[in-house]
Amino acid sequence: MKGYAKPLNRLIAELSKLPGIGGKTAQRLAFHILSMSDEEARGIADAIVDAKENMHYCSVCGNLTDQDPCDICSDASRDKTTICVVENPRDVSAMERVKEYHGLYHVLNGAISPMDGIGPDDINLRSLIVRLQENDEIKEVILATNPNIEGEATAMYIARLVKPAGIKVSRIAHGLPVGGDLEYADEETLYRAMEGRREL
Amino acid sequence: MKGYAKPLNRLIAELSKLPGIGGKTAQRLAFHILSMSDEEARGIADAIVDAKENMHYCSVCGNLTDQDPCDICSDASRDKTTICVVENPRDVSAMERVKEYHGLYHVLNGAISPMDGIGPDDINLRSLIVRLQENDEIKEVILATNPNIEGEATAMYIARLVKPAGIKVSRIAHGLPVGGDLEYADEETLYRAMEGRREL
Repeated sequence: MKGYAKPLNRLIAELSKLPGIGGKTAQRLAFHILSMSDEEARGIADAIVDAKENMHYCSVCGNLTDQDPCDICSDASRDKTTICVVENPRDVSAMERVKEYHGLYHVLNGAISPMDGIGPDDINLRSLIVRLQENDEIKEVILATNPNIEGEATAMYIARLVKPAGIKVSRIAHGLPVGGDLEYADEETLYRAMEGRREL
Repeated sequence: MKGYAKPLNRLIAELSKLPGIGGKTAQRLAFHILSMSDEEARGIADAIVDAKENMHYCSVCGNLTDQDPCDICSDASRDKTTICVVENPRDVSAMERVKEYHGLYHVLNGAISPMDGIGPDDINLRSLIVRLQENDEIKEVILATNPNIEGEATAMYIARLVKPAGIKVSRIAHGLPVGGDLEYADEETLYRAMEGRREL
């Protein structure tokens, strides 16, 4: 950027690499960082390095964690008979916010997507199979992958693998979101909502 | 955030301190940073620390710079008879992009705003007066503060200070922005556009 010194330009360029941060936003963030105290600015820098160094995937479930096994896997109070399969760590956080599920998780860190060249071996799936083989106590696998093409394909694939072992496999329900409007629902969602109707 | 480990939560919290970055965006950025290579992530952290350490205000004009005096002040090819007064370093960058102005700058790093308790002594104004007193070659001061109440007040204040010294003082033009729509222009802008009309 003309008129800016090198360190500032470098900061703007680095911030622009983040998703959703364009040139103008990066500039605004950079000027804000320069206006922070030394301590505050260093706090951000340290948090980046610290997170990069200390966060890794749980060797059991594949969730992001700073200890191995992760909090959830090593929590004795959790129900060890159920595994909820999700696509990424954000989904674990979303499920945990509901406070309704107390079982374990398995994080795939991706979904099967032939269009993008992502097959079953490119996601954290093999370790789920090993986990199921080694733990007799697991009674149910809940497939909570996203309700889109990749998520559905992944769920179908896992169901086909796991069912023959005699473990119950379920898929989270599709339907109208709470607070949503029937009028604006797409046909696929409405079809799923009708199909999944329950007697009252 | 429930379900995340400490280093990740810390990174999300630190990123949320940036302007315009809410909880959800901070989360998205944090996950993106974790998915970067170690080098890339450290690049961002280093750029923050580097910019904080090496950027400071030019002792002559008040612009942000990594050397003193700044690039523009020490550029022998620039017209030393004109000083353009702006509110902040971003304005210098904006003016430089136009490539029409080749004089010097003076960055106030603020504007007079009695409402916010910012007086003439709280901005980089005294050094402008000293600069004008010490350099006989300066023939014109262009006031390019923002076209809002604070910017106008600051421009008026500077004009009153500088004019008695026999230096030409000018204010950038107000009017309709190029590509703008007369229909949607506010009354003040339209009034200024009429007032500032020029014969063709």
